[in-house]
Order: sequence, then C-alpha cells, then structure tokens
Amino acid sequence: MRILVVNVNTTESITETIAQQARAVAAPGTEIVGLTPYFGAESVEGNFESYLAAIAVMDRVMAYDQPFDAVIQAGYGEHGREGLQELLNVPVVDITEAAASTAMFLGHAYSVVTTLDRTVPLIEDRLKLAGLYQRCASVRASGMAVLELEEDPLAAMEAIVRQAELAISDDKAEVICLGCGGMAGLDEQIRQRTGVPVVDGVTAAVTIAESLVRLGLSTSKIRTYATPRAKKVIGWPSKFGR
Amino acid sequence: MRILVVNVNTTESITETIAQQARAVAAPGTEIVGLTPYFGAESVEGNFESYLAAIAVMDRVMAYDQPFDAVIQAGYGEHGREGLQELLNVPVVDITEAAASTAMFLGHAYSVVTTLDRTVPLIEDRLKLAGLYQRCASVRASGMAVLELEEDPLAAMEAIVRQAELAISDDKAEVICLGCGGMAGLDEQIRQRTGVPVVDGVTAAVTIAESLVRLGLSTSKIRTYATPRAKKVIGWPSKFGR
Amino acid sequence: MRILVVNVNTTESITETIAQQARAVAAPGTEIVGLTPYFGAESVEGNFESYLAAIAVMDRVMAYDQPFDAVIQAGYGEHGREGLQELLNVPVVDITEAAASTAMFLGHAYSVVTTLDRTVPLIEDRLKLAGLYQRCASVRASGMAVLELEEDPLAAMEAIVRQAELAISDDKAEVICLGCGGMAGLDEQIRQRTGVPVVDGVTAAVTIAESLVRLGLSTSKIRTYATPRAKKVIGWPSKFGR
Amino acid sequence: MRILVVNVNTTESITETIAQQARAVAAPGTEIVGLTPYFGAESVEGNFESYLAAIAVMDRVMAYDQPFDAVIQAGYGEHGREGLQELLNVPVVDITEAAASTAMFLGHAYSVVTTLDRTVPLIEDRLKLAGLYQRCASVRASGMAVLELEEDPLAAMEAIVRQAELAISDDKAEVICLGCGGMAGLDEQIRQRTGVPVVDGVTAAVTIAESLVRLGLSTSKIRTYATPRAKKVIGWPSKFGR
Amino acid sequence: MRILVVNVNTTESITETIAQQARAVAAPGTEIVGLTPYFGAESVEGNFESYLAAIAVMDRVMAYDQPFDAVIQAGYGEHGREGLQELLNVPVVDITEAAASTAMFLGHAYSVVTTLDRTVPLIEDRLKLAGLYQRCASVRASGMAVLELEEDPLAAMEAIVRQAELAISDDKAEVICLGCGGMAGLDEQIRQRTGVPVVDGVTAAVTIAESLVRLGLSTSKIRTYATPRAKKVIGWPSKFGR
Amino acid sequence: MRILVVNVNTTESITETIAQQARAVAAPGTEIVGLTPYFGAESVEGNFESYLAAIAVMDRVMAYDQPFDAVIQAGYGEHGREGLQELLNVPVVDITEAAASTAMFLGHAYSVVTTLDRTVPLIEDRLKLAGLYQRCASVRASGMAVLELEEDPLAAMEAIVRQAELAISDDKAEVICLGCGGMAGLDEQIRQRTGVPVVDGVTAAVTIAESLVRLGLSTSKIRTYATPRAKKVIGWPSKFGR
Repeated sequence: MRILVVNVNTTESITETIAQQARAVAAPGTEIVGLTPYFGAESVEGNFESYLAAIAVMDRVMAYDQPFDAVIQAGYGEHGREGLQELLNVPVVDITEAAASTAMFLGHAYSVVTTLDRTVPLIEDRLKLAGLYQRCASVRASGMAVLELEEDPLAAMEAIVRQAELAISDDKAEVICLGCGGMAGLDEQIRQRTGVPVVDGVTAAVTIAESLVRLGLSTSKIRTYATPRAKKVIGWPSKFGR
Repeated sequence: MRILVVNVNTTESITETIAQQARAVAAPGTEIVGLTPYFGAESVEGNFESYLAAIAVMDRVMAYDQPFDAVIQAGYGEHGREGLQELLNVPVVDITEAAASTAMFLGHAYSVVTTLDRTVPLIEDRLKLAGLYQRCASVRASGMAVLELEEDPLAAMEAIVRQAELAISDDKAEVICLGCGGMAGLDEQIRQRTGVPVVDGVTAAVTIAESLVRLGLSTSKIRTYATPRAKKVIGWPSKFGR
Repeated sequence: MRILVVNVNTTESITETIAQQARAVAAPGTEIVGLTPYFGAESVEGNFESYLAAIAVMDRVMAYDQPFDAVIQAGYGEHGREGLQELLNVPVVDITEAAASTAMFLGHAYSVVTTLDRTVPLIEDRLKLAGLYQRCASVRASGMAVLELEEDPLAAMEAIVRQAELAISDDKAEVICLGCGGMAGLDEQIRQRTGVPVVDGVTAAVTIAESLVRLGLSTSKIRTYATPRAKKVIGWPSKFGR
Repeated sequence: MRILVVNVNTTESITETIAQQARAVAAPGTEIVGLTPYFGAESVEGNFESYLAAIAVMDRVMAYDQPFDAVIQAGYGEHGREGLQELLNVPVVDITEAAASTAMFLGHAYSVVTTLDRTVPLIEDRLKLAGLYQRCASVRASGMAVLELEEDPLAAMEAIVRQAELAISDDKAEVICLGCGGMAGLDEQIRQRTGVPVVDGVTAAVTIAESLVRLGLSTSKIRTYATPRAKKVIGWPSKFGR
Repeated sequence: MRILVVNVNTTESITETIAQQARAVAAPGTEIVGLTPYFGAESVEGNFESYLAAIAVMDRVMAYDQPFDAVIQAGYGEHGREGLQELLNVPVVDITEAAASTAMFLGHAYSVVTTLDRTVPLIEDRLKLAGLYQRCASVRASGMAVLELEEDPLAAMEAIVRQAELAISDDKAEVICLGCGGMAGLDEQIRQRTGVPVVDGVTAAVTIAESLVRLGLSTSKIRTYATPRAKKVIGWPSKFGR
Repeated sequence: MRILVVNVNTTESITETIAQQARAVAAPGTEIVGLTPYFGAESVEGNFESYLAAIAVMDRVMAYDQPFDAVIQAGYGEHGREGLQELLNVPVVDITEAAASTAMFLGHAYSVVTTLDRTVPLIEDRLKLAGLYQRCASVRASGMAVLELEEDPLAAMEAIVRQAELAISDDKAEVICLGCGGMAGLDEQIRQRTGVPVVDGVTAAVTIAESLVRLGLSTSKIRTYATPRAKKVIGWPSKFGR
C-alpha cells in the first residue's frame, strides 16, 4: 500500500521529518511518499497561509502521477481536508483529527500543545467542526514558531513540556497531542517528561489510513464529499507557483 | 466610501447581478465595485471549489489597486473570510454571516434556502463556526444549481418558495435567508409569497459594511486575524489563472 | 426616519447621554428621540428592576404619539425586547444583541465589560437566549454601579480598562463590548488604551435599526412575535407610575 | 406552612382550579393560598402578556400581608421567577421548572404539551435558561387557548392527548408535562389514555416547595438573586391596575 | 411509606450515617430502611468500583423481601440507577441528581464538592447524562477519601469548606452540593461557614422520593426503562459475594 | 500481538461470529482470542443487562491467565469500558466508539442501525459521553432482537437495510455503523445495498487496538483511569456465575 503524506508548507526539511516519522510506524508493505507543495508559505501559521496550503496540497496530490491508496494531510488545524475528499476516491486523513481521535481512546480528556498563539483558534475551530472538541481540555501555544522547532529543538522541547504540564495540572488533560506536523519525533521524550501518553498526529494518521485501506473503507460519495460536478474551472489543474 | 463586492465564482453575469443588488441599497456616497475572481469555478458548489474560491477572492482583492473601505465576500457558506481579515485592515463581511446576523433581529428562528443539497453541510458548518447556528431552524436545498438560477428563474423561484414554505411550516422558521449570492433580487417576491421577512445576504452585508465603516470599527488584529508574519511564500502574489 | 431610543431606567441624564451618542452616528435624515420611562428604577441592576423596566419601556413606547420607524432598547442584559416586538410592527433592536452581533464581525471572540457583578448572569442569559453567546469569551464586571459611571467617570474608565485588559489576556477576547447604556461615549478612549475594537451597543444599534428600515425589513409576525391576541387586559394601557 | 400559589393571569376561576389542585397534594399542615394578580391579561399567551404578568405576580405577592413560607408561580413558560427570588427570602418555585425537574426522575426524555403554538418558543426558552432542556423531547401545542381549556374541556382533553401521543411515538417522549397552569387536574386521565407518567406542574411545585421548606433551604442571596439595592424606584410599590 | 436507602459501598457505618440523615428529614409516616450491599468495595472511588456497586445495589434491592415504595441510591456520581429503574416499578432517585435538581431551585449556578480528584470526571459525566450539568459551575475535589470523612471529620470539614469557598469566589457557584453520601450531616456547618445554601443529596432525595410517591408518579415503562425482556441470565439472582 | 475480543453476552455462538470477523481483518501476527463472560444475559438489550455485562466482561478478562496486548469490548452501547481501563495497563477499545470514530473519517455524518428500540437511548448516551455524538445523524432501531440476528439473518438484513436507507434519505447520514456486535459480517452486503460505507465496530476496533499497540500507546493512568486504590473489595475476584 502506498500512502502520500503531504506537508502543508513548502519547507522540504519538514517534509523529510514527517515522512521519516511516518515510515517508523508504517506496517511492512506500506510505502510512505512524502510530498511538498509547489507553492505556499514556508510555514503555515494562520488563516491566509492555511487557505493557500489547502489549495497547494490538493494541487500537489493531483500532480502526483502514480497510484496511491490513501492521503495524509500533515498540517495541524489546517483547511482543505474536505476538498481532497471530494477530489479523491481513496481515504484522506488529517493529522489534527487523527491525533484527537486517537487521544480519545487513551484518556478522559486531551490537550493539544501547538506553536504560536495565533494558531490556537484555527485548531479549536477545526476540532469543533470535526466533532472532536468535546473532550479537548485545552489547546495551548508553546510560543515557538514552526521553523523554530527545527532551529532550536531544545528550547522547543522545554516550551512544549511546560505547556503540557500546565495542561495536565490546570486543564486536567490526561493525554497530550503534539499540535504541529513539525513536532514529529518529540513524542517519546515528552511522554517521559510528563508521564502521560503523547500522541503524534502523523504516526496516528498512518495507522488510521492503513486501517481504512485494510477495512476496504473510503470516503462516502453520497453527499458532502461527492466528486465535484463537471464544470468550467479557470486555472485548474494549476500552474500556480510553477 | 468604496466597498468591494467580490463574487466567489468566475461567472461575470453573477457579479453584475450582485453588484446591482448591492447598489440598490447602498447609501448615498457609497460606491460599489463588483469584482470577479481571475480563477476558480464558474459556480461554487462544494468544498474543492469553495477552497479554490477562498484563494481566488483573496487574490482578486489584493490585485485591486485603488483604495477601498470594506470588502464583502458574496458567496454563501464559502471558505476564506478569515484569510481576507488577516490580509486587510478594513472590515470584511461574509454574506452568509450578514444574512444570519440580520435575520436574528427579525424572528425567533431563521432558515436558509440554498441551491444544491451538497452545499447544505458547508453552510451549516460556516454558521456553526460563526456562532450563528443556534437559532437556525434549517438549511434547505432547492435543488437548483447556481447557474440554473439565471437560466430558469421561474423554476428557481418556485423551488425556493416551496422550500421556504416547508421551513416555515415544518421547521418553524420565522425568517428566510436566501442562501446564494446568485439569488440576489428575489427577496421581495418570496416575501410576498411566504408572508415572512426574507433576507438577502448581499444587501444585508452592504448595510453592515457601511455601518462598520461609519462606526470606525475594523477587524481586531490582536490574535486570530493578525497580519500574516513576514515569511517566504512561493507563488504569491499570485499569477494563478492569468 | 425617526428612531426611538428608550432608556431602561428613570434617570434622565442617562437618556441624554444615550441620545447624544446615538445622534453622533445617525445618518443624515435620521431623527433620534430619547425616551425615559415613566416608572421604574433610577438604575437597572438586577432581575426585579429589569422586569419592571421591560414593562416601563413598553409603556413609554406605547405612550409616544408620533410615528416612528424603529425602536432601540438601550439597556444591557435587560428583559422586554420580545414584548416590544409583539406590540410593534417596526424593528426593535436591543443594544446587548446589537453589540454582540457587531463584535462578531470584528474578531474571533468578544468580551463584555459591565457594571456590577450581579448583572453578569443576566447578560450571559440574554446572550444565550439570543444565540450570540458561543463566541463570547467572558462577561466581566467592573464593579462600578450604573450611577457611578456618571458620578466618577475617571474611576469608571480605569475599572473598565482593567477588566478589558484581563478579558484580552486571560479570556482571549479580541473585541470589547461596553456592557451598559450608561457607558456610551467611552469607546474611543478604551480602544486607545487596549488596542482592540470597542463596540458601544447604542451606536451599533442605531446603524442596525437604520439598516433594517432601509432594507424594508421588520419583525416576523408569523409566530413568536405575532401581535397579542385581542383580550381583556387589566391595567393596560398603563397608568402605572403616573 | 403556608404556600402562596400565584396565578399569572387575572381570571379568578383559573386561580381556583390551580389552588384546588395544589390543595389535593399538599401535606397535612400545608395551607395553600391562591392569589390572582391585580392587573394583567385574562390569559397569558405571549411575551407582552408574560412580561406584564411577571410584574403583576411580584406586585401581588408583595401586597400579601401575612407571613408565608414559599411561593409558586403557576404559569408555564412565563417570565418573572428571578425577580421574585430577589424580592423574597423564601423559596420560589416556577411550575415550568418544577414539572421538567420532576419529569426527569421518571423517564429518559419528556415532552411538554401546551396551549397555543405561539407560546412554544417561550416555554423552550425558559427551559433552556433553566438548564432543563437537554432531555426535553419536544414542546407541542394543542392549539387550545388558555380560556378554551375551561370552556371546552372535552375538546381540550382530545387535543392534548393527540399531541401527547405524537410526542411519545415521534419525539420519543417517555413522560408528558402539562404545559399550562390551567390544565391542572387533567393529568390522571391523560396518563390513562397514553400509558406514560403525566406531570402537572402545580402539584409538582407544591411538593418541591414543601421539600425546600422542610430542608431549610432557600434562595442563595450571594449573587444573582441578591436583594435589590436600595434605590429610588418610581411607581413601586405599585398602584398599577388598582 | 417505606423508602429503601441503599449505600453504594460495603461500609456499614456509612449506611448508618446515611440512614440517620434520611430519617431526620423524612415525613411522619415514612420509614427509612438503610441497606448495605452484600459485595463491592468498602468505598467507591472510581469506575471499576462504581460498576461493581451498580450491580451490588441492584442485587441488594432485589434481595429485600418486604414491600417498599421508593429506592434511593446513595452514591455520588455512581452507575446503576437506570438498571434499578428497569427492575422496579417504584421510583428510583439517585442522590447526585437529587442534589443537582434541588440546587437549581436555589441559585443560578451550583458546584459540587466531592472526595478524591479521580471521582470528579465520574460525577461530571453522570450530571451530563442526566441533563443537569448546564448550571454546574464546577465539580471540585476536597482530596479526602471516602473513609477519611469518617476518620478525620475535622480535616474533612476544613477541606470541603476551602473548596466550597473557591467554588463561590472563582467558579461563581451560588449553591454547594455535598458530593458524597458519606458527607451526610455536614451541610448545616458548611452553610454557616460559606453563607450559601448547601444541599445534601440524601435528604434532597428523601423529599423527592416522598413527593413522587405522593404524586402517584413512577418510572415510565414505555421505552428506556421497560422491564427487562424475559431471557436466560446466568448468575442472577446473584449469589455474588455470599 | 494478542488481542482479547470479549463478547458482552453469554451466547457463545455470537462470540464465535465476532472472533471470526475480527480474525478476518487482523494483521499477520495478531492473535484474536474470543472470550465469553461467565455470567450475564444471553443477549444484552437494556441497562440492567448492560451493567451486569460490564462486571461480567471485567471478570472474564481478569480471569484470563495469559499475557495480552489489548482488549476489545464487543458490545454496542454497553457500560463498562472505563472499568476495564482502570484494571488494565493495555489499551481497551469499545466497538461503539471504534465504529463512530472510524465513521467520522469517512463522511460528514453517520448513523447507527441497531437492534431494539429500547437500546437506542443507551447507544446515544454512550456516544454523548464519549464525545462522538455531534456528527451522529441518528441511531435507528431495526426492531430485530440480538438473537433474531442469528435466527433469521435474511429478515435482519432487510430490516437493517430499510433503516439504513431512511438514515441516508431522512437523517442525511453518509456512513452507516452496524450497531450490534452480532451484526458482524453484514457490512459488505449493506454497503452494496445502500451505496455508502458501512462500518462494523468489531473490525474497526481490531485495527484501532493494533494501532495503539504499534504506536506504543496505552491508557493514561494520571487521573480518571488510574488503577483502583488498594482497598477491601468483597466478592472480587468474582465467583459470580460459577
């Protein structure tokens, strides 16, 4: 089985990190293909960048010319998953939802620790729309920008652990979700530091995508995610950014 | 004052209809500028097209090279308003929210009558995120596609009235919102046929945009809609579709 | 167009303040008529006083013997708007709802800063019933009584700013609503002090009332706000307080 | 112990019916005093009448010059209970809430069958504010006006039973609440006809009021229902209607 | 009338305390029978113990061979009430729900002060299912285990008062519910210390059970709580623990 | 990896069906062990039976004397999962939650089709507590008892398909969950008949349990699901039913 793991930003090193993390949990026989969008922001931290990423991810997936079995959108709190579901017949898994869905099997309430404060409302809104917010104790910002996660991993770790500890003590979280694709790989350390299960959305999404494929399940085409109607669409397939 | 009224699809005749409707209620001294996106679907009826429209609307507004005082996004249930709010310092008004917000001053519950069934969940989701759904009695589909509204206005009128009547009798709606920018101008007839107030999102949005400007109010830049951080963005400003 | 702006308490100087604030934003051609109830409390700060005001406001409006185009009920969190909607055929706008509705176009979440702590639950309840509470970050009390706003405006300003700042930092409000008709005119200073948009319910209500009139929209009479049935009502039209 | 049972309308025969029903379940030693407001509508079926009743009930209770231990407000979906709680130190029980609260001990979901359709939203709103709506399957109108309950009891019974049956079959109600003080005494017959428990708000309220007195519990005065502050109130104590 | 008051744990001294508290408020003619389960934990502080108690309480009630008129399940936040409702034709009252239901007649919001932090989510969940959570300001843990309430009553009192005070000041509770059957009898002191009404679930439940019997009301058998279907059940009637 | 799949009722043939279904999707290297409780009802269709099953499932799992990596509780809408989470250190997956969680990756809304009408509220309540109800379009009863699924599979299929079709057309479900462990194996046929994805909770749970094990994640022990405190528990380990 081949799973496309699509970064939401245009920083290739993050695509590498994500793909590597995905491969670490993939079942034997699962091929992970990391994709970087052709256009968009080097890091996605807000609505404009997220909307641009939504289209860039769809564009990048449509440009992929080999067969594949599932797609993972590896951005936390980002737009666009519904569009991919319309365009494709294979399962689409968003890591925000994968992490929350997994966390809910592990504790009574979970918190998300993300990057900048300005992204918190985006994550909350995506979780609310997904119907996965009721057991969310909090979404907390570490204050680290996406690219700082790579530049200063030690400071990032400390900032994330501090917010995770506050989520546990003050918000009564029992599970922590790592709220950024770029945090892939930090889960084990944070688990050791906080004593609670830590869910990385990328690895959670890999197992969910594999499971859907194995169960022969894919997106319902009966209403919301029906294939777009045949019509004139200017500028698509896209040359945007190329 | 100059208000940009941006169509979400690339059909210019709809831009005309919308702008004309907007001008009919604009205050003396308000200039209405109708804009059509440079790229995107000829009609927006689903998530992929809506996400593409989100970027196309931002692109079109950013390409406008004259000063303006407010922007109206004239698509019902579409994505993107939050991105515009980040990119601009002037008020941004979405017609979905303008209609709901206005309807809530007129009756205890309102319903939306829209085009195709597949767009119903999009409208519901946007109203939920906007915190304007609690008093929504229902979102009902007339079954008419966006372009059919122009092609067969008589059939469209009948289909809309039928659903409006069901919304009143079965869902206990006391106000009807016209759930498509392309329905601009039908409100008076439907009001006469149903006996309840009918809100057209475009005209409602014009008065709200004018009011915000007059009150000296614009988007809060303190958190969610702060200006995007300076960073490298590939493919933007866009050449997409040109 | 003539708009009645009705104070909820019997202190005439507050009526003056409110009417003056309303006139400052009214469109050319809009006449603002400030009305003071014939009976009720000198300041409304609780349920008993608020229920009395509900009837006193209806009584005062019914006693007004000239034509008018809309009514604004200028009390924050007070009862009675629904009754006016039944009695009248012109639009009725409550400043609590006008402020919240306007704030929601400006930021992701808003807070209300009001007078005494005991009025907080009333405001919360009115916003909940109105379906405008979901994006309310908090309702905070400044601790200043209604009449103290006039008696000690400097202390009032400081107390309001302090709570507004806490609403922004702790509750994540992005917009502040001034939660008392008697705070009319403080918005600009508080905006400068806090850096976020500040909504005054009275001015917001004026623009909304004007807009509804311009759009030819008024209260739906089909169900909840139908004209009261003809029946024997003792003590009405009222001589109460005269 | 003496309990005041206050009718919300000015029709004395309904006061009689209610008081008689209350006496039928009162414990030995409980004296039931039926009170009719001095002013207001002969029947309360909407917001204006309900707001007037709110004040009329407070007025009537304050005019009662003997000691008493609790007050029951015998109107379904009416305003005013919170005002009485501020004015008094003894427990105040609203029959809408008494019925719902009791019904929730009897089945998984309950429905209310009331009089006219226009009163349905009032009842729903009061239940929502009271935090008793979650397990409400529906509020249904029998179409019988308050006074018709007395004038044509057979037709009323049939209309109520019909809606109760629909509530059970379609809305999955397991308990029926009689949604009008004037329905007092019909519970036993409707129970026999429908096979489910039927709660009359008046009798439920009597047992709750007695229980609160016996437990030595009364309204918390710490915040929302604190005694009104000393201030100038024009027209109160009221001469309204006298 | 005879009411069974069933302890949820196997510590007989707690049964004594509960029964004594129940007798103190029971009406003349009401006989209170305290029952201790034959099996289960000496104190119930978590899900496993609570599920075991659910069956143990049903088992103990079914083993009672005299007639009775109502059953009170005297555990806070415990499972099982629904099962008893299926097995019996008389009313069943859970003290968690009795306390919340009573508190809602006394103030705008209530808090629960319970034993160990680990029981907080159980209480919250039971209140949510019961539809009684909306006006719950908080559930707070005193940190005292169930058995410590008996062993060190002074320390328990202090710990409970401290949390009650925080609930009032920080969470805006206006009423306190004692969140453990073993706290029976502490209400009067805590009321004096905090100045707000304090509800003990056991005494509240006694008055509710008596009221339901007096009103001739019992569990609806039409759907959720219908008598179990005749079928083969291994190990029941139970020998469990004997 | 070894996964215990525990039936909630005592009918061994259902255990067989469930285990066989589980094995059909289990990954190479996963051993599925089907377990039947030692006591309880032959079919679980209500609260009493469900509470008894909760304890019976815990009892059966604790009596299993070999190592295992995860447990699946194969009852739809049943109690007890939280107790298992306290008693065990390995992941516990309930099929109700597994199915809902999986369905939410496949469509905008899902419905559950279950057995008898009386079990509908149990399923709704479990989904509500699990925070998975928001996107549930409906829970519908086929009217077939659990044992009838085996006795008359053709009638069962027809009844389930009929309700699934109504869920799709009337409730706007886009995915169907099979709401009974005993429906294992029917998914493919129903998918073909209805045209939407059909989720079987047992197979969904197998993939989720495997995924949690692979990700090294298990139940958080920090609060709600902490291991029960050491204390005296009469009648446990259980001899119940043996």
